[in-house]
Amino acid sequence: MSAVPLNELSAGDIARRIKEGEITAEAVTRACLDRIDARESELHAWAYLDPDLALEQARALDRGPHRGPLHGVPIGVKDIIDTVDMPTEMGSPIYAGNRPTSDASCVALMRGAGAVILGKTVTCEFAGMTPGITRNPHNTDHTPGGSSSGSGAAVADFMTAAAFGTQTGGSVLRPSSYCGIIGFKPSFGTFNVGGVKAAAVSLDTLGLHARSLDDIDLLTDVLVGRPHVAKAAPDRPPVIGLCRTPMWELAQPETVEAVEDAAARLAIAGAAVREITLPASFDDLTVVESKYNGRDIFNRYERSRLMAYEWNNHRDKISDGLSNIIRQGLETDYADYVAAMVRADECRARLNDVFDGIDVLLAPAADGEAPKGLDFTGSPRFQGLWTVLYAPSITLPTHRGPNNLPVGIQLVAPRRQDDRLLSVSRWVWEKLGPA
Amino acid sequence: MSAVPLNELSAGDIARRIKEGEITAEAVTRACLDRIDARESELHAWAYLDPDLALEQARALDRGPHRGPLHGVPIGVKDIIDTVDMPTEMGSPIYAGNRPTSDASCVALMRGAGAVILGKTVTCEFAGMTPGITRNPHNTDHTPGGSSSGSGAAVADFMTAAAFGTQTGGSVLRPSSYCGIIGFKPSFGTFNVGGVKAAAVSLDTLGLHARSLDDIDLLTDVLVGRPHVAKAAPDRPPVIGLCRTPMWELAQPETVEAVEDAAARLAIAGAAVREITLPASFDDLTVVESKYNGRDIFNRYERSRLMAYEWNNHRDKISDGLSNIIRQGLETDYADYVAAMVRADECRARLNDVFDGIDVLLAPAADGEAPKGLDFTGSPRFQGLWTVLYAPSITLPTHRGPNNLPVGIQLVAPRRQDDRLLSVSRWVWEKLGPA
Repeated sequence: MSAVPLNELSAGDIARRIKEGEITAEAVTRACLDRIDARESELHAWAYLDPDLALEQARALDRGPHRGPLHGVPIGVKDIIDTVDMPTEMGSPIYAGNRPTSDASCVALMRGAGAVILGKTVTCEFAGMTPGITRNPHNTDHTPGGSSSGSGAAVADFMTAAAFGTQTGGSVLRPSSYCGIIGFKPSFGTFNVGGVKAAAVSLDTLGLHARSLDDIDLLTDVLVGRPHVAKAAPDRPPVIGLCRTPMWELAQPETVEAVEDAAARLAIAGAAVREITLPASFDDLTVVESKYNGRDIFNRYERSRLMAYEWNNHRDKISDGLSNIIRQGLETDYADYVAAMVRADECRARLNDVFDGIDVLLAPAADGEAPKGLDFTGSPRFQGLWTVLYAPSITLPTHRGPNNLPVGIQLVAPRRQDDRLLSVSRWVWEKLGPA
Repeated sequence: MSAVPLNELSAGDIARRIKEGEITAEAVTRACLDRIDARESELHAWAYLDPDLALEQARALDRGPHRGPLHGVPIGVKDIIDTVDMPTEMGSPIYAGNRPTSDASCVALMRGAGAVILGKTVTCEFAGMTPGITRNPHNTDHTPGGSSSGSGAAVADFMTAAAFGTQTGGSVLRPSSYCGIIGFKPSFGTFNVGGVKAAAVSLDTLGLHARSLDDIDLLTDVLVGRPHVAKAAPDRPPVIGLCRTPMWELAQPETVEAVEDAAARLAIAGAAVREITLPASFDDLTVVESKYNGRDIFNRYERSRLMAYEWNNHRDKISDGLSNIIRQGLETDYADYVAAMVRADECRARLNDVFDGIDVLLAPAADGEAPKGLDFTGSPRFQGLWTVLYAPSITLPTHRGPNNLPVGIQLVAPRRQDDRLLSVSRWVWEKLGPA
């Protein structure tokens, strides 16, 4: 018997031990359900959970043949992602009781690999900024971040081995950083978003929350659909670009400390660390006042078109915060949207030059620790820059802040170099380790 | 009284005449329904049509205040696009009776502008290559093209003023060319695809079928959400790049004739016509044997991930043709997909250089006339090249082939220059006119 409770095992360990007959899928699912039972009234990570349905899936797996590399692994699913056997309510009363006709692509791929879809995790309203009721497992007075709030909290609190999140601004990496876990946002387009409710189509990226890099690696291979081969760390120390970003002065002391400490320790460990300044044209992507401020403009403009049905038919059920975003979007000039998109396209194309001779960038993951209170899930600015640039990014829980809450660092690779990011992240994680 | 039957009016004329109190939305809808009643048993353009529901919408518009620039205009909706009050069956028995919880973004935007959602039009199975039962209105022994088969046929046959199509390869422009109407595929990302069933997420583009450029213009403004201002033709003759594409030898004589005749007449009308050869690296996008053949690789790979739910749970209800595509996708190496995507990204970035000094490209719209028979909706190659390149493209019904069936030409602009495309198209259309 392992000393580690079954609900604390990694996805990879669960799959291996079930395959070897040491444990059953039912026992793992039961351990997760017990953990949820003990902690959910405090954390509110789950939007929908039917223990019988989860156990039924697990028992069916135990009875049947080996299904794949995630046989028996419990997965949480953000509640904007369609599930055929559970409601998908989007964090909105408009979709109360909504029952999709099919599983989202990512859910079906997980089931195909043998995963147990444990339940649906709390999302901010339509994956935006209006919070759900989830609390940070490290301190329930603090936000878990958002919009993948339930996924971040549930994985951090050992309620599930891993969970899906989505990132349009910073919705995977921010809750991961705040909750002290690993969050991975692949390149735009790497994971299939079929069956995921859109927020801003040009930015929406499906991502993963887990507690180990092995698990990110394993789940990624299932989602892109290739045989799993663990990605080794590079055999030579990487070249790391220290990228403070144009928003550096907005970083709180704990984030400044995390990034600078990481850079110093990685240099000592042998990495070549070079200061990288993004081209000046990139400033416009993040300066709130700029007319090329892509993240805000895209988010508002696309939201307002995307949500035409909800806006025209159920406006009374949309929060004030989201209503304001939609109103701003409706007032956004289409020509300004196109101009910002052209600018963003140019920056995306130039990003490869930024990586000339650089393996990955090291950047702030979030402003700082999780803010106190549940009304604000924190600023997406440090995550959103890379979302707009379509670059794969990952946060590692390497540091702690003044309130002993987690503070992550962020690593970024060029678009479509997801494998490089996961490989170099291993090297970094081996050197830095958890906070 | 106009001599033109109400079902033959353009969207713009319908809206104007209803606004001026000359006609009612109910009368227009009834005229369309009468036309459908007379012709549907031959053409099979509609997947779902509830005359009472359509008339109810029209009467509600007649009773209520003026809703917007499409007040009373009947619109057909391809049956992969969600409608809250009609089934959305995707051309597949898997989705028989499927009732979405909400309208797709584009449907809600149309309703918000006052449109009558007339019904759902026949689509190839999941917007792929397995045909529905629709026939070409010009000769029912011939395919209408696909996958937006019903939309193309219904608009051409005066059953509806306009209709939505989607293009992942060539599914808007091909049926438009074959049916002798105008088909517009905007830049990738211009129209919101929320609520549209994905086929290959990196290529899926929502588009329009109509019988006039004014209508394309009007509907585009509703969908991007800006006040409608008719786009004038440029006041100077444009510079037109004659782009035969690397597939020129696959064009049938009627397509060669259409493109060359168009080029000659536009030159006589004052346009500067220059022969344009695409960079050699673009060849790989279309050469079937190339490992960088983006359209086929993206389509197969993304399909196979996207349709994991249907493949794992309803395989017996998937056609042999689509099953083969999915199988090929499952066998596609992920690294090859990424390599092809990187190549496509490079070509997309280089496309702006191709347009140096050029306003629009003139290119073949399809191999030739609509092929005989209903088993094959025709090759998407001449449309798909521009889909992969994310460039806006339009087909105009300027010519006829040896069987007196329509043959379109295609005009293409740089990505996000949709307005330029629509403006120059007016100049071209004024000079060439209908076949």
